[in-house]
Order: sequence, then structure tokens, then C-alpha cells
Amino acid sequence: MARPRIPFSSLAHLNPVGDSLRRALFAALPSSAFRSVSEKYLTEPRGRIFADGAFVVAPKSAEEAASVVKLCVEARTAIVPFGGGTGLVGGQIASGLPESVLLSLERMNEVRSISESDDAVVAEAGCTLQAVREAARSAGRIFPLSTAAQGSCHIGGCLATNAGGVHVIRYGNARRLCLGIEAVMPDGSIWNGLQLLRKNNAGYDLRDLLVGSEGTLGVITAASLALHPELVEESTCLLAVPSPGEALDLLRLLRARVGSLISAYELIHGNSYRFVRETVPGARIPFADPPEWSVLIDIGAEFKLGVGQMLESAAGEAFDRGLATDGIVAASESQRRSLWRFRELIPEANRRIGSISSHDVSVPPSAIPEFIAKGDELLSRLGEFRVNCFGHVGDGNIHYNVFPAKGRGRDDCAALRTPVSRAVYGLAVELGGSFAAEHGIGRTKTSELLEHGDAAFLESMRRVKDALDPLGIMNPGAVFPIEAAPGGHSPSNSQRQ
Amino acid sequence: MARPRIPFSSLAHLNPVGDSLRRALFAALPSSAFRSVSEKYLTEPRGRIFADGAFVVAPKSAEEAASVVKLCVEARTAIVPFGGGTGLVGGQIASGLPESVLLSLERMNEVRSISESDDAVVAEAGCTLQAVREAARSAGRIFPLSTAAQGSCHIGGCLATNAGGVHVIRYGNARRLCLGIEAVMPDGSIWNGLQLLRKNNAGYDLRDLLVGSEGTLGVITAASLALHPELVEESTCLLAVPSPGEALDLLRLLRARVGSLISAYELIHGNSYRFVRETVPGARIPFADPPEWSVLIDIGAEFKLGVGQMLESAAGEAFDRGLATDGIVAASESQRRSLWRFRELIPEANRRIGSISSHDVSVPPSAIPEFIAKGDELLSRLGEFRVNCFGHVGDGNIHYNVFPAKGRGRDDCAALRTPVSRAVYGLAVELGGSFAAEHGIGRTKTSELLEHGDAAFLESMRRVKDALDPLGIMNPGAVFPIEAAPGGHSPSNSQRQ
Repeated sequence: MARPRIPFSSLAHLNPVGDSLRRALFAALPSSAFRSVSEKYLTEPRGRIFADGAFVVAPKSAEEAASVVKLCVEARTAIVPFGGGTGLVGGQIASGLPESVLLSLERMNEVRSISESDDAVVAEAGCTLQAVREAARSAGRIFPLSTAAQGSCHIGGCLATNAGGVHVIRYGNARRLCLGIEAVMPDGSIWNGLQLLRKNNAGYDLRDLLVGSEGTLGVITAASLALHPELVEESTCLLAVPSPGEALDLLRLLRARVGSLISAYELIHGNSYRFVRETVPGARIPFADPPEWSVLIDIGAEFKLGVGQMLESAAGEAFDRGLATDGIVAASESQRRSLWRFRELIPEANRRIGSISSHDVSVPPSAIPEFIAKGDELLSRLGEFRVNCFGHVGDGNIHYNVFPAKGRGRDDCAALRTPVSRAVYGLAVELGGSFAAEHGIGRTKTSELLEHGDAAFLESMRRVKDALDPLGIMNPGAVFPIEAAPGGHSPSNSQRQ
Repeated sequence: MARPRIPFSSLAHLNPVGDSLRRALFAALPSSAFRSVSEKYLTEPRGRIFADGAFVVAPKSAEEAASVVKLCVEARTAIVPFGGGTGLVGGQIASGLPESVLLSLERMNEVRSISESDDAVVAEAGCTLQAVREAARSAGRIFPLSTAAQGSCHIGGCLATNAGGVHVIRYGNARRLCLGIEAVMPDGSIWNGLQLLRKNNAGYDLRDLLVGSEGTLGVITAASLALHPELVEESTCLLAVPSPGEALDLLRLLRARVGSLISAYELIHGNSYRFVRETVPGARIPFADPPEWSVLIDIGAEFKLGVGQMLESAAGEAFDRGLATDGIVAASESQRRSLWRFRELIPEANRRIGSISSHDVSVPPSAIPEFIAKGDELLSRLGEFRVNCFGHVGDGNIHYNVFPAKGRGRDDCAALRTPVSRAVYGLAVELGGSFAAEHGIGRTKTSELLEHGDAAFLESMRRVKDALDPLGIMNPGAVFPIEAAPGGHSPSNSQRQ
């Protein structure tokens, strides 16, 4: 099959927010639903992509959200759904669009119900991930999705982007934790799919389709979510390993010894230690002499089992086999927290150093050593860089972040950004991997989707998009790139390099 | 939103298999691809729905399957994908259609690859579930999907119907075990989505959309599947419980004691014992005096843990609390197998007794006692019946099967079939449940889908179907009912009562 003919989002028929739409919105919603536009709605955390403006509406219910969508349908005006604003690929930024309605879920922030006996919670899209986690804990359960941004990201955004994080190895990503959704579809109808069922084959899996569609197929306004039993024992260690290959052998050993008790298995490169030391004064760095490669391991049990002893014994075996060369087994809860606090500082340290380009990629786990070795080789042909490669190696998901050589700023390397990204993404795909593992496509990876996506897959995606959103008003420019206007100004995304 | 205007499959534009299509197929595929049509292709296991005929083609590769689809597109002739033929809702039966091409996956039966280090297997759609399970075991892993029909059902069919089974409580259903698919789309293009990744957010989740779409959105020709570690310890017990309420309390107790080590948690009604005794001569019946309610429990660990002791201790606690009144803890592997053999005989015994109507429903687990109590009450208003209610209570999935009172045949009760089904499905939906938990919609539950489906959901399903299969040639009559022909013969499904 040929490449799909029309993979792009067209803006030609879209109108900016005009007086009549504004009036209609003011008439349909209470005044509390309107927000003045501010910087937080217009730029993403890394400051790489921004919008010039938007008209911000924050409905309090699915019905109000449906009214907004219906009025935008009539006005042919684009809608950009907005959660906590923490997305790293610009999916929430109304960039390069005629003035759009930014539909913020911030006021839909109630936990509607929680059922211990059904191990489920129903939360509105604007609840922070932290709020959902706390609601679960208050019912003696856990909601295991966990990310660095959990205090500010919204559960709706987590679902719209199918967020991952450190516990995917045990519990799966956001999609797997979602039982059902309530969503406003692009025609303004409300789909009430807030079921608590573990098994339901009554029709197509549109839940999993909307989850991860980044607001391009509808707006998730609430979700029913699966809860898990609390872990009554948790144990953590940080082990230095000779190389990524040994990190994988160690994971295999651990799987044989503790099976599915592994809650997290994170690779950490030596640059993580150096960057934290360099940029976060007073941070506690676990090793005096940072190892080039290390893994942070969490295991936990839902019942008394002695996981501390099990982890120590597995770690001992790893030393005997040469899979680990140094290590810290947390002896107390505060040591556990301290190790994790260090892990959580890594993204912040990366931000402070300032990457040329960061890559959220995945490969089949067995290909990780090859990916890392070849990645370094490819980069060395392009210039001199520091790479901080870290992340969820147990899932094959690596954050492969490329920084200027010491002493150089990221502005010096702006011209290298595209060749670096192309090399890294191309390598991941060549090894059977993905250029978008857990952050999504957003507005920054649309050209990669077109370049690397299977032709029949892209064609089918486009058909689904056109079927559910025939006017193309739901988050245009996200997932599918914006079509260049004929003859002249290209409305490509505004990007600050 | 109003009910969707066109929820139906139209046959008006479809042509029966004609000479020119036949000739084109013979020219495009080797002679080994053609099969004479026989009873097995035309009727389903319960004999409730059948086709008059079909033209059977069995491609050996995705490319051959794509040729078949392309030729059918040109000829405007319906395609009915066919796996192992074990589906219980008629999705595989070309019933009520102009003569169709039955696309059998039986010759695509190779395990293409298996990767221990990536815990994954790539299998063609026509592999039996048993063959996939054996391939996994030969690599020191398990593929945990397990159903009564595993020796004959195909993995492609398991995915097309999102099959469930006894281990969903631990490992999820077919969808959750699927990493990627290769599929022929309704336009004849091949989507190669056979990835081995645990995390991939590069585009819409069309994998989960095709999984469970029952051949109406494309033909799955191969799949990459997640493997799990072998269980090195397994322990089984069968406990008599006072009522379904105590069965759920016992599950909660067990979750607190052994957490996610629970591999199966099956409710068994007294009629299961009586039916097996009545219809399967020589079968070993676990209790001398069958309890009215009992649960069959499996727990297992991927490492040495002493699960036998854990299960005995939990069972002891259940007795102390009055949650169990009698029980058998398997003392050996052969006793384990014997308990499971009894469980596996139940569907066969049901078939021999001959149900009026069988219902694969789910409700939120907490609603199960209410569902069972109210179900009995509703039925008592309709007549005298025997109910065998059994199944995957840990997932809230119950097979609620209704039989004639002793001494009466199912033919005597034919007129009651519809009112019984309506009552049971209506009750499940009223309690927040589903009328199609693990078997799908097929051709027997299409009217229930229209009756109980959320309007916005149905409208979106219809749009997705029309977008991916604009000609309506992929398995018409499955999922969406066939539109009555204007003025005259209604091409509804042929059903033997």
C-alpha cells in the first residue's frame, strides 16, 4: 500500500475563537468556568513549544464539557484539551493554531466514588495523580501509576497519553489500570463508559482507543480505575553493574528468584550521579564514587514474606556471579526513600544541565545493550556529547538524553538537535523499538510517526480520526502534523530551540 | 444524543461468490489453499446457529490472505474469518449472508519465533492455543491463557474474541497478553504490527481495537504474545462455602494472605456436581454430598515459597471464620489435576443436559450475590428451571446457564428462551454489568448490544466500522445485526432452537 495520502491535520476550515462563539460560551457556562489565559496554559515544562494564546474554559461537569464541544463544532473552532500541563511532547499546547478553545479539566477534580470490594475508584479527569493515589490509600489500596510529576499531572492527562512510569514492570501503564471512561466525543455526545468490570466484551475496545489518543478523538472527563492491594513489605537496593548487559542478566536472575514481586527496575547511568551533584546542591548522592552503570530495584509483597531477606540474598548471588560489583541495600524506610529521592532528582538535574535532545524510546529488552552501544557510536560521528541514559530498563524503556559536552551550552548545539534525534530514533526503530515509548507523539514527534509508522497502520489511524472527528477540531496538530498551508506561511509548531 | 441511525450491517450491496471471484481466487492462490466446505465450517459447537454454505479459502501467509481480501473487495463479497470454530456466539458462522468467502486461518499455524530474553512468542493466527502454550513451555515460560477449548481453538480466534478463561484473575484476558498483531485490513493492506515492546505510545492503540472486534475490522494473521515465568509451585483446593457472599469474603481473605498469587478462583454451583454425575459416567465427583456452593482455588508462585502451606493456612482461617464449611486441599499433583478435570467437565455436562439459554455475564464482583439472588427470583416468575451458575467469580464473570426443570427437555421450553435471556441480561446491566463478558457479541447478541449499549459508544463503534470497512465486507452480521431487507424476507440469522 502506498503511504497514506492525507496524514495531515488541515487548518484551512478552522475559525479562530470569535465574538459569537465567545458569547455562546458565556451564555452556556457559569462565569466560574472561565479563566484568563496565562503562561502555564501556553508552554510546556521544557519550554520547547508554546502557543501565542487561547481561550480557556474549565467546565465543571461532562455536560458542561459537552456544551463547549458542541459550540466549538458549530463554530468550527479547534479544541485543545488541557490537564496538568506536564506533558513533555507538547500535546497540550495550542501551538500553530488559529486561536483555540483550551478545554481545561482543572475544575473536574472530584473523586466520585471508591469501592473497596470492587477494587476501583472513579475519579474525574482533573484529579491529580497524587489525589487518586491518596484516595486509593485511604481505602487501604494502592493506585500504582507513579510518575515524577504526580503532584501536578492530572489523571485525565495520564490516560490521554497512556502514561508509564517506574511501576509499569509490575502493574502496566495507565491503559492497563483503566477500567472505563466517561468522555465527550468530538460531536459533543457523552459516552458514559464508567464501568467497574474486569471482563467486558460488549463491543469494540474504544476505551483503549481513546486512552493514548492525546485528546484527538475526544475528551476524557472521568475514569474508573483499578486498585491493587497495598504492599505490606517493600525493599530497595541500588546495585552497581558492569554494563547494561549485566543489568539485564541481573533482571533475569531476579525474576527467577522473586518473580512478579519486582515493582521497579531502573537503569541509572554515571552521568545521572554527576548531573545531580553538579546541579542540585545538598542532594544526597548514593555512592562516593559513582558507578558508570547501576540499577535501582524495588521489590514488594502484598503479604508478609520477608522480601528484605529475599532481595539481600538475590543481591548476594548477583555479586557471586559478577553481575553486580557494588551496592547499597536500604536498611530502613528512610534509606529507601533516600535512594528513590535520588532517582527522582535525575529528570530535574537533566533539565538544569539542559539537553540538546531527549529521547523516550523503547526496544525489546534484549536489544538494550546493542541500542546503547550503537547509540554512542552514532553520536560520536556527529560530535562530542554527554549522554544520560536512564529509565525503565525492565520494560525496555530508556530515556536516552543527549547533552552538550562539558563547558558548552545547549544553544551551541541547536543545529545538531535534528541529526541527533534522527540517529537515535532511527536506531531504536531499526532494533524493533519505538521512538515514543511512554510520552506519546504530541506535537514534537509527528514527523517521526509519519516516517516510521507502518503504512497500513497510519492509514487506519487516519480513517479512525476522520470518522470520529470529521471536522478535525479535536486537538489539531497533535499526533498528526499540521498540513503546510498552500503557498506561503507554514503554520508549523512554534518551537524555541 | 439520539440512538444511532444506522447500527445495522447492510447486505444490499454484497454479491454472493460468483464465477469470476472463484476464478480469480484460483488464479491467485495455490490449489492447496482451497478446502471443500463441510459441517465444521458451517455450525458452531452448540448447534444453535448455522450457515447454508460458504467458499472456504485457507491462505498460508498474510500476503495470500491479503490477496483474498483484495479480490473480495473487488467482487463486493463478504468475508467471514474462521479460526478453530469453537466460538459460542456464532461470530465465525456465515449465517444469513449471500454466499461468502470463509477465510480459514488453519494453514497459518506456525510459531514464527520465540524469544526467552524478551519473554515473547510470535505465532500465526491458526496455531491452536495449546500449541502456543507448548511453545512457551519449551522455552521455560508459560502462556497463561487457558480455556476448555484450548486443544482446538486458534490463537487468532482467541484474540479476535478477546478470550478469557480461568486465569484472567492473574494474567488478564487475551488482549492483555497481546503485544502486537499482523493483520490484513479490510482494504487488503497488511499492517505489520508484530512488535515485542512492553511500552509503545507511537500512535492509536489499534491493536486493542482489532483484538475483540470479532473479525469485523480486519483479519488477524499473526500475533506477538507476552510470556510469563513458569510457576514452580502450584496448589489447589475446593472449598464448600455457605453462599456466593461468603465466596467473595473468602476471596478477600485470600487476597490479604497470598495477594496476586491467586491464579484461579472459580465458583461452582451444586448443579454442576449433579449434572456431571448425571451425564458423565465414571467421572470423579469431588464431594460425596455436593455442596450447594463451592469455590475452586489455584495459587501459584514463580519461585519456592511454600504455597501449599499458605493455602492450607488460609483455608483453615476460612473455616474458623465460617467462610468455608467443607473442603479438599489437593495433596498431590494428581489430586490437583483431578479437581481441575472435574471443573473442565462442567461445560460438557451442561451441553449434555441442554440449556434453554446460557449467559456469559459479568457484574462488579461486589454485585454477584445480588445478581444470583435476583436472577433466581426473576426466573421463578417465568417458570420452573434449574440454574447452573458457575465460573470466574474472581473477575465478576459468571456463566449463568438456565436449564429445563428435571424431566423436561429444552424443546419444551423454546418459547421461554427469549424472556429468560432478556431477564438475565437486563439484570446484569442493571447491576452495572455486561451481557457479554468473555465470549463476545458474535451473531447471537447483536440485539442486546443495540439494546444495552451506550448511544455515543454505539455511534462511535459504527463510525469506526464504516471508516475501516466502508464496503461492509468484513464479517457482516457479527457485532452489528443485519438490516432487515425492505419489504419481505428478513435475512436474520438462521437459528436452530
